[in-house]
Amino acid sequence: MTSLSDLPIRDDLRGLTPYGAPQEHVRIALNVNENTHPVPEAVARDIVIALAEAVLTVNRYPDREFTELRESLAGYLGHGLTAENVWAANGSNEVLQQILQAFGGPGRTLLLFPPTYSMHSIIAAGTGTQWIAAERDDGFEILPETAVRAIREHRPDIVFFCSPNNPTGTSVSLETIAAAYDATDGIVVVDEAYAEFAPADSATALTLLDGRERLIVSRTMSKAFAFAGARVGYLAADPAVADALRLVRLPYHLSALTQAAAIAALAHSGEMLAMVDDIKGQRDRLVVELTTLGYHAWPSAANFVLFGGVDDPHAVFESLLAQSIIIRDIGIAGHLRVTAGTEAETTAFLDALAGLGRPQPAR
Amino acid sequence: MTSLSDLPIRDDLRGLTPYGAPQEHVRIALNVNENTHPVPEAVARDIVIALAEAVLTVNRYPDREFTELRESLAGYLGHGLTAENVWAANGSNEVLQQILQAFGGPGRTLLLFPPTYSMHSIIAAGTGTQWIAAERDDGFEILPETAVRAIREHRPDIVFFCSPNNPTGTSVSLETIAAAYDATDGIVVVDEAYAEFAPADSATALTLLDGRERLIVSRTMSKAFAFAGARVGYLAADPAVADALRLVRLPYHLSALTQAAAIAALAHSGEMLAMVDDIKGQRDRLVVELTTLGYHAWPSAANFVLFGGVDDPHAVFESLLAQSIIIRDIGIAGHLRVTAGTEAETTAFLDALAGLGRPQPAR
Repeated sequence: MTSLSDLPIRDDLRGLTPYGAPQEHVRIALNVNENTHPVPEAVARDIVIALAEAVLTVNRYPDREFTELRESLAGYLGHGLTAENVWAANGSNEVLQQILQAFGGPGRTLLLFPPTYSMHSIIAAGTGTQWIAAERDDGFEILPETAVRAIREHRPDIVFFCSPNNPTGTSVSLETIAAAYDATDGIVVVDEAYAEFAPADSATALTLLDGRERLIVSRTMSKAFAFAGARVGYLAADPAVADALRLVRLPYHLSALTQAAAIAALAHSGEMLAMVDDIKGQRDRLVVELTTLGYHAWPSAANFVLFGGVDDPHAVFESLLAQSIIIRDIGIAGHLRVTAGTEAETTAFLDALAGLGRPQPAR
Repeated sequence: MTSLSDLPIRDDLRGLTPYGAPQEHVRIALNVNENTHPVPEAVARDIVIALAEAVLTVNRYPDREFTELRESLAGYLGHGLTAENVWAANGSNEVLQQILQAFGGPGRTLLLFPPTYSMHSIIAAGTGTQWIAAERDDGFEILPETAVRAIREHRPDIVFFCSPNNPTGTSVSLETIAAAYDATDGIVVVDEAYAEFAPADSATALTLLDGRERLIVSRTMSKAFAFAGARVGYLAADPAVADALRLVRLPYHLSALTQAAAIAALAHSGEMLAMVDDIKGQRDRLVVELTTLGYHAWPSAANFVLFGGVDDPHAVFESLLAQSIIIRDIGIAGHLRVTAGTEAETTAFLDALAGLGRPQPAR
């Protein structure tokens, strides 16, 4: 049988294994920060009607400029943004990949602040962009002077912030983003995949866009909009950024079905986002109850909680999986990450964890 | 206002303009080789039912391995292929991009035989793969010795054939593909986007796959399946090829809606492909009638016809557009390309072209 190593793959891919959060059929899946609430029935009905309409002309290529979708996304974002400020792709991973194709690539560098979303470095590698790890401050924070110092030291072509950050839940302040922007001539990307879960008074980097043509704020419909299966990521930026991405995107990259479903969902943003308050409640409950159980739960502005004080993360992961509950071992020593589910899912997780006994005190 | 040149885009992108077949609202669109027949109503109904089912769980990430879709595609292809032989992405452009990410990229080369599908060189550039143009024989053919000579001269890492070839309609023989395979240690890709329109007795490169682990046959649902709007391209190859692509694909690259729609359409492949015979009939009619009108129509095994003897292609294009009929100026001197539409569309095109008067004899 032919194996991968028998094929003439690129040398830099030899020996790698693919990205793979396990996709197991379990009772309670709290491992990939999905919105565990299905799309509300009335909204689902309108999405299906829009899809049925799209199927009638699916023999034709979709609108390559996805103009109506960009208008809907701009309307949802507000902050004076218009369709010209918006770009979209098949998930925010593809948005970020296109940014690196246009502004990164061979001979260029990307500054990251680990621990952060694991796909950032994978997409860098996939586009031939060299990535550099910068240090965070205590509590996974990034102070303005810390970001500026790292940028002056490494002089990256692109800087990625993730706010709220996956897997830590930490927000990055607007002061830090503005200071980083001023310290570089490169592109600054703020991955706000979890923005809708931040406290109501949190400021989004969207408010910094005006006058900063090298700043990009990426978002996704996967999380707050419960649309992970539909694969819709997007960004807001100066219209010239969209022009740059038009040079690297594959033509017709967004299907007519994707466009129709997303437009229909955005027309119901109020109902779609009603679930967010429930999820924030369960997230805050996780922080309180994990602390009560003796773990160290990090404060989170996202739909998940990172908790430390886990003596043997692998053993806890496996014990929960044996009860058909899956969470995530993200490779931080002594830590695990759990998504805030429905009230029932969150209760089941906390009960199962409590059943494993109190964590061992740190040695 | 900020312009693209004010942003720190990659030097190799500076001054480029995006790919752009015009997307005009016209009465008769015969410019991008779509299947101009809508999906049959009974099939559309089943697709919508499948989509409605998928929307119920769209809050969850899709099956990253799209196993059921791969099984459906393998069943459709036949030739003893199984799901392990099949890979899919958002259009065959993305399939080809993933192939170049895994086997091409910086420091590697791709051999093409122009005139061919314009996206092949664009995707090469987008992945940092250097592409090399090889000569064709008379009549846009590629004889085995011609392919072998070009491979020996350029020693490419990857060879792309397009059969039937866009924009010429020419098939590449299995002898040529087999000889090219034997002449290289690299990857050989046969882009069979238009395979279903070839004469019934044509052999597909699928028959060459057994024992050739470096051979890849790419296909699309955009053309014969009337699914351009749904963005489903795929390939058949040794299972190790899919393993290689798992290293470069973005996780969850195929949405749950895409998977559901494609599986439902493939369950009706008989009805979906019934349109193909009509289209082949109109294609053959185009060749005959264009010749009668005094043009040189090239023989075509695809759903379009390239015709020469056009004194001023731009003027003919514009004259037809003024009548709300759009065809394609593909940049070959004295030539235009027209998609075979429905009988009514094809008639309207031929009548409009005849109304422009007989072409000037070649000077």
